Amino acid sequence: MLDTLRRTFELHGFAGIETRAVEPLDQLLRKGETSKEVYVLRRLQEEAAEGAADERSGKADKQLGLHFDLTVPFARYVLENAGHLAFPFKRHQIQKVWRGERPQDGRFREFVQADIDVVGAGELPYHFEVELPLVMAEALGELRAIGVPEVRILVNNRKVAEGFYRGLGLDDVEGVLRSIDKLDKIGPDKVGALLVAETGATPEQAAACLALAAISGSDASVAERVRALAVGHGVTSELLEEGLRELSALIDAAAVRAPGVVVADLKIARGLDYYTGSVYETVLVGHEQLGSICSGGRYDTLASDGANTYPGVGLSIGVSRLVSRLLSAGLVRSTRSVPSAVVVAVTSEETRPASDAVAVALRSRGIPVEVAPSAAKFGKQIKFADRRGIPFVWFPAGIGADGEVVPHQVKDIRSGEQVAADPAVWAPAEEDLWPRVVPAGE
Amino acid sequence: MLDTLRRTFELHGFAGIETRAVEPLDQLLRKGETSKEVYVLRRLQEEAAEGAADERSGKADKQLGLHFDLTVPFARYVLENAGHLAFPFKRHQIQKVWRGERPQDGRFREFVQADIDVVGAGELPYHFEVELPLVMAEALGELRAIGVPEVRILVNNRKVAEGFYRGLGLDDVEGVLRSIDKLDKIGPDKVGALLVAETGATPEQAAACLALAAISGSDASVAERVRALAVGHGVTSELLEEGLRELSALIDAAAVRAPGVVVADLKIARGLDYYTGSVYETVLVGHEQLGSICSGGRYDTLASDGANTYPGVGLSIGVSRLVSRLLSAGLVRSTRSVPSAVVVAVTSEETRPASDAVAVALRSRGIPVEVAPSAAKFGKQIKFADRRGIPFVWFPAGIGADGEVVPHQVKDIRSGEQVAADPAVWAPAEEDLWPRVVPAGE
Repeated sequence: MLDTLRRTFELHGFAGIETRAVEPLDQLLRKGETSKEVYVLRRLQEEAAEGAADERSGKADKQLGLHFDLTVPFARYVLENAGHLAFPFKRHQIQKVWRGERPQDGRFREFVQADIDVVGAGELPYHFEVELPLVMAEALGELRAIGVPEVRILVNNRKVAEGFYRGLGLDDVEGVLRSIDKLDKIGPDKVGALLVAETGATPEQAAACLALAAISGSDASVAERVRALAVGHGVTSELLEEGLRELSALIDAAAVRAPGVVVADLKIARGLDYYTGSVYETVLVGHEQLGSICSGGRYDTLASDGANTYPGVGLSIGVSRLVSRLLSAGLVRSTRSVPSAVVVAVTSEETRPASDAVAVALRSRGIPVEVAPSAAKFGKQIKFADRRGIPFVWFPAGIGADGEVVPHQVKDIRSGEQVAADPAVWAPAEEDLWPRVVPAGE
Repeated sequence: MLDTLRRTFELHGFAGIETRAVEPLDQLLRKGETSKEVYVLRRLQEEAAEGAADERSGKADKQLGLHFDLTVPFARYVLENAGHLAFPFKRHQIQKVWRGERPQDGRFREFVQADIDVVGAGELPYHFEVELPLVMAEALGELRAIGVPEVRILVNNRKVAEGFYRGLGLDDVEGVLRSIDKLDKIGPDKVGALLVAETGATPEQAAACLALAAISGSDASVAERVRALAVGHGVTSELLEEGLRELSALIDAAAVRAPGVVVADLKIARGLDYYTGSVYETVLVGHEQLGSICSGGRYDTLASDGANTYPGVGLSIGVSRLVSRLLSAGLVRSTRSVPSAVVVAVTSEETRPASDAVAVALRSRGIPVEVAPSAAKFGKQIKFADRRGIPFVWFPAGIGADGEVVPHQVKDIRSGEQVAADPAVWAPAEEDLWPRVVPAGE
């Protein structure tokens, strides 16, 4: 899966980077809200008194923590290397991250994320907001061959929401988004009550926000419906229009390049307050209750060093969450548990070098092979292969019981078919060469 | 490099596993001597009082630390999964490890190791002690194509050393090995003095130990010289003979399968006391002062659950140390800094979809491509490619300044050659398709 993701990202020109697992704690805590999740490091032999004193005096700058996502490290990387990078800079990053959360279905304390981001120096054209979800659509689409269900990428644009809310007279945009973000969890009635109670909305304004959030679709009618709703509530907003133009451009491009995959969904809010344009979430069709497996958006400030600001757009696949669902739902299986396609049998320990020579010949042509661990009876050596799902057993040439010359033979232990074979020429069928992950039904 | 190592390991039937970054602290501290290097984890929001109390009362079992090698986690993995594994079990494991050491040239606090081990249940035949260094020789040999220098795998056998020392009348085998291990650092005179001072050896016994340690070679004469030395000192030892038979078998097999790579070197001691048979170190020829980049050996007890003991043999490549030397010595270079082989130029933002279509066509045939970020002047778009080392710029078909139809064209910006091309057919030369790591001189 990681190889497939990496290949797709690189076909689109994203350079792979890797950052260290730790960052200074003060960098990790910049956003505040995630502080509860961070694992802090301490060397076992460190002067205990010194460490404790640092903690009491709040010297977070000397402390190190494990990164909890790949965005904070990437921001640090961009600032540190800005002088050497060519912008816009496209990178992919596939690494483990750690969060001290309570583990549950699809949520782990150690998990793998696969991120792509493009970041500009000072500016970043809108077309990247179209390109990045399409790269993810392609990457996730490539995984269908191994049993990953169809995905649906849900997109929205912060400018649409903000323009509409402000046009309605609601200036607590953050507050409205926070309430709307709860729609899937508590339903429209309670969200409506929240909007009235917490953002000062009138029941009519709350109803309008809920009506906007109810709009979804994958064609030009989405923008028309939003405009009709705006007109109905007397909303006029240049920001809303700009957001609708952007959202429509994304939907139009997606209809050509990834038909049926990208859907505008005006209730997508994303909790994080730093998104400023497109926002994305991705669900597995038929497994929507798992939540989003690939999220992200446009941010106007990934990082800033005072002189320069670096806007970006990115998405992150929660690989472990995705894999855990594939396994728990029994959607995928591996064709075997070890790399080897062939076990070369050993007739006796004295003739092990002859078996090794067969293995060397096969490997030189890219065939994964192991040699039997002992010169047990052939039935036991076949069982050794069978237990590991290895399809072929090779019997090296030798002298038979009656003194006759016995040629090299290879047995397909699934069919029982055994044929004479030449180590310099024979190869397994392409689908048997390496273990493969396939849909469980195959 | 990691892809190449993984491929070689899998061609030999080693299954890849990955273990979590953390282990219980008491597991990590089982060997005692490495305690100073461990990073301990704490959740930031954890009740500080509780954590401190655990530390005071020594409740290491509740604490977690980052793994400092891949052997301790593998031992835990084997015990936990013994019921599901088929033995002998061959695994490779390529992961980061962490040690709180003082960083220096070739020594990092976070680094990557690439390990192979084979572990048996109850027993493990000697031939695996021959096989494993040969797999590493092949893996490291594959890296020569990208500029890794020739390697020399130095092998010894604990049975030879122990049999010889005991035959001499020296029973503090650990003590003698510890002193011999310092030969490269302090020289034979000081090691001789150490042997007399710390292991109770006579000057004659010390001289015999130093004479043994001075023997090296890659043919049958090694065993003969050791036997002659033993006879000269009146040493007779069945253990010594067994060790010499094993060492000779390894040297003989290596002479056939990896000529010139494996050398018997009787001074190789390895600090860790759990090795019981073959021991291995590996140096880069011409960079011996970097120390060993791939070490390991045979151990009779990787893990034990009381009922079963799991003997094994394994080696570990210090990938980060190897890479740091390749870079600092200027031995390797990358052919470009991004994956893309082609930049598709954009004539105007209105015709960006035409450029996207060219990119889609090329990618569908496995060619890494990016589309220019803006419809700047073509000279600027060529410069965009040049700065990243991307060899080709594609100019999409369109209408020229005089209204004529201009066909698709692709320019090799290294030679300046520009030719008409079809997005459905054109491909770069194989060596330009993906960025490659090559010897610096190439």
